[in-house]
Amino acid sequence: MVVVMQPGVEATDVEAVVERVEAAGGQAFVSRGVSRVIVGLVGDVETFATLDLAGMPGVAQVTRVSTEFKLVSREQHPDRSVVHVRGVPVGPDTVTLIAGPCAVETPEQTLAAARMAQAAGATMLRGGAFKPRTSPYAFQGLGELGLRILADVREETGLPIVTEVLSAHDVAMVAEYADMMQIGTRNMQNFALLQAIGETNVPVMLKRGMNATIQEWLMAAEYIAQRGNLEIVLCERGIRTFETETRNTLDISAVPVVQRLSHLPVIIDPSHSGGRRDLVLPLSRAGLVAGADGIIVDVHPQPELALCDGAQALIGKDLDELATAVTDLTTYMGRSPARRRYRSAG
Amino acid sequence: MVVVMQPGVEATDVEAVVERVEAAGGQAFVSRGVSRVIVGLVGDVETFATLDLAGMPGVAQVTRVSTEFKLVSREQHPDRSVVHVRGVPVGPDTVTLIAGPCAVETPEQTLAAARMAQAAGATMLRGGAFKPRTSPYAFQGLGELGLRILADVREETGLPIVTEVLSAHDVAMVAEYADMMQIGTRNMQNFALLQAIGETNVPVMLKRGMNATIQEWLMAAEYIAQRGNLEIVLCERGIRTFETETRNTLDISAVPVVQRLSHLPVIIDPSHSGGRRDLVLPLSRAGLVAGADGIIVDVHPQPELALCDGAQALIGKDLDELATAVTDLTTYMGRSPARRRYRSAG
Amino acid sequence: MVVVMQPGVEATDVEAVVERVEAAGGQAFVSRGVSRVIVGLVGDVETFATLDLAGMPGVAQVTRVSTEFKLVSREQHPDRSVVHVRGVPVGPDTVTLIAGPCAVETPEQTLAAARMAQAAGATMLRGGAFKPRTSPYAFQGLGELGLRILADVREETGLPIVTEVLSAHDVAMVAEYADMMQIGTRNMQNFALLQAIGETNVPVMLKRGMNATIQEWLMAAEYIAQRGNLEIVLCERGIRTFETETRNTLDISAVPVVQRLSHLPVIIDPSHSGGRRDLVLPLSRAGLVAGADGIIVDVHPQPELALCDGAQALIGKDLDELATAVTDLTTYMGRSPARRRYRSAG
Amino acid sequence: MVVVMQPGVEATDVEAVVERVEAAGGQAFVSRGVSRVIVGLVGDVETFATLDLAGMPGVAQVTRVSTEFKLVSREQHPDRSVVHVRGVPVGPDTVTLIAGPCAVETPEQTLAAARMAQAAGATMLRGGAFKPRTSPYAFQGLGELGLRILADVREETGLPIVTEVLSAHDVAMVAEYADMMQIGTRNMQNFALLQAIGETNVPVMLKRGMNATIQEWLMAAEYIAQRGNLEIVLCERGIRTFETETRNTLDISAVPVVQRLSHLPVIIDPSHSGGRRDLVLPLSRAGLVAGADGIIVDVHPQPELALCDGAQALIGKDLDELATAVTDLTTYMGRSPARRRYRSAG
Repeated sequence: MVVVMQPGVEATDVEAVVERVEAAGGQAFVSRGVSRVIVGLVGDVETFATLDLAGMPGVAQVTRVSTEFKLVSREQHPDRSVVHVRGVPVGPDTVTLIAGPCAVETPEQTLAAARMAQAAGATMLRGGAFKPRTSPYAFQGLGELGLRILADVREETGLPIVTEVLSAHDVAMVAEYADMMQIGTRNMQNFALLQAIGETNVPVMLKRGMNATIQEWLMAAEYIAQRGNLEIVLCERGIRTFETETRNTLDISAVPVVQRLSHLPVIIDPSHSGGRRDLVLPLSRAGLVAGADGIIVDVHPQPELALCDGAQALIGKDLDELATAVTDLTTYMGRSPARRRYRSAG
Repeated sequence: MVVVMQPGVEATDVEAVVERVEAAGGQAFVSRGVSRVIVGLVGDVETFATLDLAGMPGVAQVTRVSTEFKLVSREQHPDRSVVHVRGVPVGPDTVTLIAGPCAVETPEQTLAAARMAQAAGATMLRGGAFKPRTSPYAFQGLGELGLRILADVREETGLPIVTEVLSAHDVAMVAEYADMMQIGTRNMQNFALLQAIGETNVPVMLKRGMNATIQEWLMAAEYIAQRGNLEIVLCERGIRTFETETRNTLDISAVPVVQRLSHLPVIIDPSHSGGRRDLVLPLSRAGLVAGADGIIVDVHPQPELALCDGAQALIGKDLDELATAVTDLTTYMGRSPARRRYRSAG
Repeated sequence: MVVVMQPGVEATDVEAVVERVEAAGGQAFVSRGVSRVIVGLVGDVETFATLDLAGMPGVAQVTRVSTEFKLVSREQHPDRSVVHVRGVPVGPDTVTLIAGPCAVETPEQTLAAARMAQAAGATMLRGGAFKPRTSPYAFQGLGELGLRILADVREETGLPIVTEVLSAHDVAMVAEYADMMQIGTRNMQNFALLQAIGETNVPVMLKRGMNATIQEWLMAAEYIAQRGNLEIVLCERGIRTFETETRNTLDISAVPVVQRLSHLPVIIDPSHSGGRRDLVLPLSRAGLVAGADGIIVDVHPQPELALCDGAQALIGKDLDELATAVTDLTTYMGRSPARRRYRSAG
Repeated sequence: MVVVMQPGVEATDVEAVVERVEAAGGQAFVSRGVSRVIVGLVGDVETFATLDLAGMPGVAQVTRVSTEFKLVSREQHPDRSVVHVRGVPVGPDTVTLIAGPCAVETPEQTLAAARMAQAAGATMLRGGAFKPRTSPYAFQGLGELGLRILADVREETGLPIVTEVLSAHDVAMVAEYADMMQIGTRNMQNFALLQAIGETNVPVMLKRGMNATIQEWLMAAEYIAQRGNLEIVLCERGIRTFETETRNTLDISAVPVVQRLSHLPVIIDPSHSGGRRDLVLPLSRAGLVAGADGIIVDVHPQPELALCDGAQALIGKDLDELATAVTDLTTYMGRSPARRRYRSAG
């Protein structure tokens, strides 16, 4: 059950709703979006029906929605949302190119990759300081040192940074550096992490679990939203199938399917889905004309020396071709490149 | 082992190779492509090595190729091939739009669908007379009556026709009507059917098995090629995964992956992969910029009355949008629309 | 819609039903089981409802069943069926061990394998004369020569033989030799083949497609049954998943699930599902206590020389252990070993 | 790289190895098993080769193992391990039955379920206090209150308890109550959680990720072992496939495959894999004869009122049949039931 508050609602009206729900033995989670406040209720629906929530001050609507995800559903919010990351929009009118190294290795490598990204038109920098690795014996990332390198490179280039957080425990620390926090494919149902990020006001990029249905993915987004953070960007990064020519299978259909079900922006990751440099360009193009709101790609100044996923990192001519494709197909789709705009609230 | 003959080789030289191989206890299969003749050998490689095939008249090259598929491999044939279907090319320089009803139901419905297809820029007509259905109680198609309807509509519109053949037994009969025979997803490893079609000189569209790896798909094409028919168009139509929002998952990566491994043209079927009308446009666009050599879509004058897969058939505005997208993205990819050209050999 | 005839119904009564249905524009397929005759109807249900079929002589019941498969459904036929293969039963009271070489190679190898099988308690011989192979360059089987070898070995050992048929075209010929015809995993939806076998009265073993749902598998059985052949044994042989330690993933749950949905016997193939000799014993045991009505395994006198799947063929101690496990667990499940019984109708 | 210390090694010898590795820029993780201490090294192998670790006091062996998982590999530890949970063994000589409610709801329900479990021969109690749920609006468990209920029921019945922990943050708290901590399928690659549990000395049950390969599963176990906790029980609980008749597909082959690759005990969860009560008995039997070291099942005094997964919880006659099957097949496999034995170290 969901209580949608009126625009510009008073905080005390919201509190009153929460108190009435809790007094009746339920739980109420407040979500503050850019333009509205929503209260999600957990508990006995029959009881809630007796509380006359719809008659309370500041309440616009009380709904028992038909889909299981509520706050992220497009049924409740027909306009597609825009998420702003330090002034850079991700949403329906723009195409956002996010690029950077898979892993932050050194200040020099990170800055060089950021410069490459920027030259190719990227307006956001990706880079991993905490790396989830199948083997405990593989490179696990530089940790907070990596975050400091990213912050320095942001200072130097002006690019907002997106970086992965692996554990609820690290959320507060990563949130001090990151402009957008990434939840990786293996953590899509790490509910403690989802909730911890849901309690911050930092935008989040939620990658699809490689084994997750679209419904489960949206439900994971709902976990974040339920705690009050609606600044969520979804990222399709390939699902696990029987095919072995590619690391995973990019589910290109997920882009229009998700946009029909949810108001959240959705981007694609052509680097990690295929795991092959030669697929980044065709998959990026495909994503753009399927309607993706952005793409996120690996670049590295010296892919052959990369500590992580060098085989898929772009460089030189490949990156130039990608830049051209993004420019051309952004225009074709009637969108504009996502450039940084300074907002009062940013 | 593969014997590549010289261009313009004499038939007697080819026969001499075949005889020598058979005399040594092996089997030799002659494949006559547009520009070359290839002899594929089956049997003991050590024995073949003693036959001095490379020294025989008309032989250009004898190779033990490293991939398991030989005749369809790009390693042996770096230039991507063009398949001509009654003068309409499918290949690297063009984009071919194939459209029509899932099933041929009546002459009126088929002609109406063909006119719709033509108006949208299609230069080939699809339509099923023999329908593979999961249930024996579902509509199985009109059989030869359906083929006659297709032939009449071809007469009326000039559109070459592509239609499915379900069984080796029907190949000769279907070949009398069809300009291109289709092998459906459930028959991709029906080896008797592959071989029967391999022995005709009618072009064939080989759909990927919904459970088949790309390697298995190319190996199925090899079965056809080995019997002498290299006029093969591959069609990606979605693979089976755990996702349930779509009927199958279009493996968009398969387009560039196949084009790297094989010289054969590859098209996509956005109608059957998604099973949803609203996905046909975004998936078609995605396929075109991923490099597909064509697309095949369902159209129906009255989708709500269709005996088969009406939920995915295009009509009206959706079809217009598709036509525009095909035109625009064909140009974007530096290709031209595939128009019928009369060839002497056609 | 299904018309169930009374036990011992007259042939003329059945014909009368067929004629009335066809006169009304429908199709009627007669299935003659061991103890009953069923007529499956294809066409417009509303029309059939006007024909008063239930009032006709010899008709026991007319049902619009709720499941999509009718003739093979347990809803219509609560007692689980027994299929007799030259007097050897496959059904709920017995456990049938079928063993033999993956491929028939020579008379000596086949006889030796049959002797091994027999010593281990097998009462049916498997052996492939027509082999479906992913590559056209792999050994394809001896064809009719292989069938003659099998017939000779049957003569020598008394073991009924089960062998694969790849194409509708070969059904008549294979039916002359085989006591049970096998439909392989790649042909589960080769509808022409299903129908051709459905028109014989030779028992058939229908392997599950490696990508097929249980519903699709039962529907494939329905294709056979609809043409009049209800002597169908289902065989679970593993499905395709992402796991690579095994060739396929034996879906052990399929055994009880199928037995709940269908009255047909179901056996498992532990050799082909795992593709590894060390898994044959544990998977065989697992299948037996999950309720399988039999198991089919590969044996070979010299696995290291086998032309096909030697890595999974049992020999020596492994086979002895299997024999012991089958004996013990057959008793544990309250069943008896399936021995040949001479039937008047057999 | 792994350093295996001599039995009864001095703590100072272990520290000396750690110091030398760290001084060389590497990381060293000490794993203390029941009978040996192992030091896993992370860092540059070439450098380690120069340190003469093999010559240091107390070092038995230094190996560069060929598999990627080291500490859990059977290659390094041929004898299969026994994990003791408050005196109850899980290992190769016994079969351990673990039973209890999916979720702890009330003291009465939990005690009743425990009594049912005990009557059926279970020697360990399962019960969830923290429930991972796809939807944030589903019942999430009682939290610490649930743990206290479990502790009370342990007091009353003597059954050790196994319960899930969802987050690294909760590990210390859950470890105060649990005799074995469970890592659920969605958290198999929650590396922070794996490491936090690895730093306790509480036994852990690691469920296989529903999308995880066996290699990835063992690598997740390696994460735990690397931090020093080798008291790991693996639990196969079904993988995600295309089949929809069952919730997941129990990969029965995983039992013998894992036992060949790893020395860790492995049990199966027939309740969650199938999601259906009628499959629990056949899947349990199958697991036991495939060699599983135990089974874990859901029981509930009133399944129709269960807050979680009632459809699969056993009761009454079903539970009796399971108890009989466990007894019989434990004997058949030459094992004994796992009863609590008081150990000095327990």
